[in-house]
Amino acid sequence: MPHPLCSLEALPTPSALVEFSRLEANCRRMAERARHWGVGLRPHVKTHKTVQAARLQLAGLPPRITVSTLAEATFFAGAGFEDITYAVPLAPQRLPQALELAARIPRFTAVVDHEDTAQEAATAAAARGVRLSVLLEVDCGAHRCGVDPLHPSSVALAERLARSPHLDFCGVLTHAGHAYVCRTAAELARVATQERDVTGAFAQRLRQAGIGVREVSIGSTPTLCAVDHLAGVTEVRPGNYVFFDAFQAALGSCTLDQCAFTVLATVIGCYPQRRTLVLDAGALALSRDPGPTHLRPDCGFGVVCTVDGCQPIAGFTLAALTQEHGTVLAAEGAVAAAYPPGSRLRIIPNHACLAAACFDAYHVVDGEHVVDLWRPCRGW
Amino acid sequence: MPHPLCSLEALPTPSALVEFSRLEANCRRMAERARHWGVGLRPHVKTHKTVQAARLQLAGLPPRITVSTLAEATFFAGAGFEDITYAVPLAPQRLPQALELAARIPRFTAVVDHEDTAQEAATAAAARGVRLSVLLEVDCGAHRCGVDPLHPSSVALAERLARSPHLDFCGVLTHAGHAYVCRTAAELARVATQERDVTGAFAQRLRQAGIGVREVSIGSTPTLCAVDHLAGVTEVRPGNYVFFDAFQAALGSCTLDQCAFTVLATVIGCYPQRRTLVLDAGALALSRDPGPTHLRPDCGFGVVCTVDGCQPIAGFTLAALTQEHGTVLAAEGAVAAAYPPGSRLRIIPNHACLAAACFDAYHVVDGEHVVDLWRPCRGW
Repeated sequence: MPHPLCSLEALPTPSALVEFSRLEANCRRMAERARHWGVGLRPHVKTHKTVQAARLQLAGLPPRITVSTLAEATFFAGAGFEDITYAVPLAPQRLPQALELAARIPRFTAVVDHEDTAQEAATAAAARGVRLSVLLEVDCGAHRCGVDPLHPSSVALAERLARSPHLDFCGVLTHAGHAYVCRTAAELARVATQERDVTGAFAQRLRQAGIGVREVSIGSTPTLCAVDHLAGVTEVRPGNYVFFDAFQAALGSCTLDQCAFTVLATVIGCYPQRRTLVLDAGALALSRDPGPTHLRPDCGFGVVCTVDGCQPIAGFTLAALTQEHGTVLAAEGAVAAAYPPGSRLRIIPNHACLAAACFDAYHVVDGEHVVDLWRPCRGW
Repeated sequence: MPHPLCSLEALPTPSALVEFSRLEANCRRMAERARHWGVGLRPHVKTHKTVQAARLQLAGLPPRITVSTLAEATFFAGAGFEDITYAVPLAPQRLPQALELAARIPRFTAVVDHEDTAQEAATAAAARGVRLSVLLEVDCGAHRCGVDPLHPSSVALAERLARSPHLDFCGVLTHAGHAYVCRTAAELARVATQERDVTGAFAQRLRQAGIGVREVSIGSTPTLCAVDHLAGVTEVRPGNYVFFDAFQAALGSCTLDQCAFTVLATVIGCYPQRRTLVLDAGALALSRDPGPTHLRPDCGFGVVCTVDGCQPIAGFTLAALTQEHGTVLAAEGAVAAAYPPGSRLRIIPNHACLAAACFDAYHVVDGEHVVDLWRPCRGW
């Protein structure tokens, strides 16, 4: 750890804090899990978007990452990451930039799930004289992106991708986004099984049709925290686990004291007669993610914690967020008056990916000391 | 209008678009309204955070503005704005920066609603040798910030502020944030009346106690679009009206074709069998503001519009947002297949203030032409 830059106390608010020891432990745990399952880890970097956290995710593993924007791909390629999967369906307009990346680093992989894009990608790659790696996204039940694994046209699309001399068809990819709406551990385990098995079965179907499938890429933080084995899978792409957050804690992916990302806030209003405090961390510092309301209807917009030790404060609910105000409601027994204006609190956000994106820099902390400043990639 | 920089078609996505003619008309209309009521207009700039839009808000009026962060205050002071109200309760830690601003521009006004802060402000202003303008925030019913107008301690706090030789007590300020949860025009009219009358009555109470009250500052976009007169009020501070948004349209503050801020998006997934499209505008481009669900439970995360003319597309609902994906559901009769990957759409966000804050620059458009690029202030 580098030398302390300043104390936590000296930071302005709202500030984004990353607890180094928690982040490092989260990274280590997921890497061990992947090793235990015998699959490759291609961590998603969209949660933090920093070179430093990506390196911690990869410690000792091949430098493969997953990104959600071409801005991230360009940023990480510039920082020496040589194997990048852009895990969002490629829009035809992005082909020139994607091919530029494919020419620049040893491996850049795009995701395709539509006939037209497959055709345009093959044509553009031929024209540019670059072979583009592609994965076919399959819908394992989330119904966001991906082809229907049971529809004949999905095999036909894989065939088209595999046939093109200008595309390198690597295999299939999925993301069980529907894990986030699970209500019980059993339900989550079923989604985790579905993510693995639907994708594995689709890969087998393609192989039976004579299509080479080297890669079966799955993954979300909740399903990888719930799954029992990963037979048939070659790599996993979790991302949120680096920070974790209040949503993941409610789902059972982590405990609150594993959450590495918090927002430091100052009390700007103290109204004991209304049993409320107002913080200077509002929707622009925490995002308006409503959190795991299907599990905890009164979860509020994050977990209100002490500055020292980041311990949840019983009876405090972050009940409302407007642009620059966060309103904390104090239940019976929780004393709002104990936090006059100028007091400080830390918030574990509902959704760390969205809260982190509110900031141009993260203050890396080790207890009371700020030890580093990390600057994420921004924009698209 | 400046010369076209490029066509709308040439922009990457997601991009923030500001329709110049709509913004200009929105600014003109609110300025006329303030003139009609005989009150000063001190527009809030937090929605757009740009020098250009602030100048349009002020056209022909004294250069008074309202800000929500000291970063905005510093940014606008640097751009020549000489009379700035920071309309969020001042945290004691911000006193040095507030006094710096008070020394730098002809008038910088802070908001106070707590005894301790009043005391610390007086002490710090004395030590710095600067007289700080202050307003007392009063709670007109929103129960976010502000003192209880009926409690005797509120008059005592005003007296303390007025007595300090180092503070210039200007008057009272409120914001009817509870306008946003109104369900009917009648309910909204009642909140607008309450905002005006509670604040006016509190000012009168202070005057009767011998405290000079020069300013009675109220305002939110919905209440100022609903109020019948502003007797007793000296200035108004609306902000959102510059852009308007889907929430304001549902409340009746505007029509959808007055909304000046949209997000340009590209279709990256087209799944006619699931009746869905996926856009490259997710929660990081639109915010996760749930919108006016109390009025329209199925409002989705914004209004899906055509690129040309920005007309709402019947039957399309922006049903889900994840970090970089927006899922559009097509009702019976609305044809998802008409928008293959690469197609473009525009989204009127639920909450323009939060969506605008997702971008480092806004593309100012006049029909199909991009005519300017505005860079907002960011951070705190």
